[in-house]
Amino acid sequence: MLQFDVLKTEGHARRGRLTLNHGVVETPIFMPVGTYGTVKGVTPASLEDMGAQIILGNTFHLWMRPGQEVMKSFGGLHAFEKWHKPILTDSGGFQVWSLGAMRKITEEGVHFASPVNGDKLFMSPEVSMQIQTGLNSDIVMQLDECTPYETNGHLTTEAEARKSMEMSRRWAVRSKAEFERLGNPNALFGIVQGGMFEHLRQESLEALVEMDFPGYAIGGVSVGEPKEQMLQIMAHTPHRLPAHKPRYLMGVGTPEDLVEGVACGVDMFDCVMPTRNARNGTLFTRYGDLKIRNARHKADHQPLDATCTCYACAGKAGVSWADGGRDGFSRAYLHHLDRCGEMLGPMLSTIHNLHYYLNLMTEVRAALDAGRFEAFRQQFKSDRARGV
Amino acid sequence: MLQFDVLKTEGHARRGRLTLNHGVVETPIFMPVGTYGTVKGVTPASLEDMGAQIILGNTFHLWMRPGQEVMKSFGGLHAFEKWHKPILTDSGGFQVWSLGAMRKITEEGVHFASPVNGDKLFMSPEVSMQIQTGLNSDIVMQLDECTPYETNGHLTTEAEARKSMEMSRRWAVRSKAEFERLGNPNALFGIVQGGMFEHLRQESLEALVEMDFPGYAIGGVSVGEPKEQMLQIMAHTPHRLPAHKPRYLMGVGTPEDLVEGVACGVDMFDCVMPTRNARNGTLFTRYGDLKIRNARHKADHQPLDATCTCYACAGKAGVSWADGGRDGFSRAYLHHLDRCGEMLGPMLSTIHNLHYYLNLMTEVRAALDAGRFEAFRQQFKSDRARGV
Ligand SMILES: [Zn+2]
Ligand SMILES: [Zn+2]
Repeated sequence: MLQFDVLKTEGHARRGRLTLNHGVVETPIFMPVGTYGTVKGVTPASLEDMGAQIILGNTFHLWMRPGQEVMKSFGGLHAFEKWHKPILTDSGGFQVWSLGAMRKITEEGVHFASPVNGDKLFMSPEVSMQIQTGLNSDIVMQLDECTPYETNGHLTTEAEARKSMEMSRRWAVRSKAEFERLGNPNALFGIVQGGMFEHLRQESLEALVEMDFPGYAIGGVSVGEPKEQMLQIMAHTPHRLPAHKPRYLMGVGTPEDLVEGVACGVDMFDCVMPTRNARNGTLFTRYGDLKIRNARHKADHQPLDATCTCYACAGKAGVSWADGGRDGFSRAYLHHLDRCGEMLGPMLSTIHNLHYYLNLMTEVRAALDAGRFEAFRQQFKSDRARGV
Repeated sequence: MLQFDVLKTEGHARRGRLTLNHGVVETPIFMPVGTYGTVKGVTPASLEDMGAQIILGNTFHLWMRPGQEVMKSFGGLHAFEKWHKPILTDSGGFQVWSLGAMRKITEEGVHFASPVNGDKLFMSPEVSMQIQTGLNSDIVMQLDECTPYETNGHLTTEAEARKSMEMSRRWAVRSKAEFERLGNPNALFGIVQGGMFEHLRQESLEALVEMDFPGYAIGGVSVGEPKEQMLQIMAHTPHRLPAHKPRYLMGVGTPEDLVEGVACGVDMFDCVMPTRNARNGTLFTRYGDLKIRNARHKADHQPLDATCTCYACAGKAGVSWADGGRDGFSRAYLHHLDRCGEMLGPMLSTIHNLHYYLNLMTEVRAALDAGRFEAFRQQFKSDRARGV
């Protein structure tokens, strides 16, 4: 099932509520990425503590390891990874596409060799629906072909983008038919493609809207294109999608991208940036990004973000440094952990970065509730530009 | 300060209570090792949740990184690592000794090159006391020379063991003098040495007892000797130490070693085994050890230990599988995490192994309280031998 209620709007921005088989998701929302059945470096309990409402799983990865049989024996991904709130799974299309020379894409589907054991495998809209049905994810994505921005220096032409978009459209039809044939009780999203060409995006979304999916994604962004192209697509497509259905911008982005995305009418985001950057020592804060490896943090008693209430910044008490809390870990300590290669470093950094993203969305929702999103957006920008 | 109360005895085994500047420790106790100011792979909150009462820090490592200045700016290790219960620090002696060719030991102390930046450094009883005073650990260890079991195939002779033991004894005198000169408000332990020679151990402990330390450690075990030699020293020394003072067996050992150690009169243990083995996929359970990498766990829905209430085995609810709880993570999931190299694997395994050790000591204390330690010890042995 999927029910979506738009509670409030401000310009293109929307405050919504998404009801799925495993629970309710307040939107706009950021969805942490849990590729292999785990959001890297955090426990499910910790994700709940920081307010995560829905997480991602990667169909392709879970198909490779642990495989469909194990997944089915658990009745799906929720029981396997012990996450009982909603899950969205991608289709696996992006991953097979990323195999490059190791795969061959035809109208029927994608033939490829397993990167784990070399087995010859076949991915198709039908196979993707079968695997995702086994995963029992709350939101299932259609199989699409990811239209590249460029291939070995060759920019994708309009003709190429059209060809790719049209195949994704046909795959949408096949995905929907198989999803229904399987009696999957969850919700299937269609994915708008069309590369960097607005009229192709328009054509794609019109065809998908006619198919009446319960929700829509905007795919084929964050695939190596210049930032301004991504922003252009983000400004073009979301608000053209049906107003009463959720809109998901795939694989985006920085905190700034999320706030701009909301302004453009996006309801759902996912990105590996908070988790990946945490492991590389880049921390997001209200006043800009912070590199914990920088020697200037060596003896700094302040937490990563004086306004943050995450476990890393505010300890179990959850009182921010700005509010007088002194239970959090210092920048000096995190700098030390990083220098020593201690696991607790990425663990705490991941908690902080995910909390930052989730809290940012909480602040966005509060601003929308209060009818002052535009003021929030300006404050957010100037805060982030201030420097940490 | 240090106060030690023996609450109950059974044979040589003792149930005690240790009061230190940062709190009370119920003994017998296992102390998780936090070398670089972090018990590898767990948060302080998680350590508290699993009932840790006192943890270790390594003086040598913390001297190298982050260094004394940073430590002093935090007023010691507690505020730096955000662990507010008692801490024991070693003297750094074992680590400089382990540097091998990079160090030169004389009566005065140890000259060595920093393994971090090559700086020429000097460790002595006085330096160790100064660093440990800066760390403000609740229990400070004297600087000793670790007597090796063998060196390049040469078994340490009695003469060599005597020479080493006598130097440690003189270093005990210097450690005590410097500790007092510094006005350190915590407790200094003497360390019994003497290699594998019982009469040397006896001589060492008599000299230390005369010096009237508030507690005693048995050092120079777990240094590569055969298991039976370790058990021989463990059977010899602890009960010969003053009955009203705490006894700490350094660097030991397996669950079986701990229970035998308690039977021999040991009150305190530390060992890297639970944390290190967790990272290598070896899990301790009530019914024996479990290798999570073994393919037979691939689809096993059971938790690591059906009787365990740790977060890994029983989730947030903390109800064991045996008691009907189904919130824990399965062996299949942990097998999968290990196969995928996911951080959550060692995170959950570390939680489980530390919980296992801490809970084992809780069960030991309960058995002593009930006057049935001997029955517990037999049950423990047969359970562990059963196989998982
Ligand atoms: Zn934080
Ligand atoms: Zn457990």
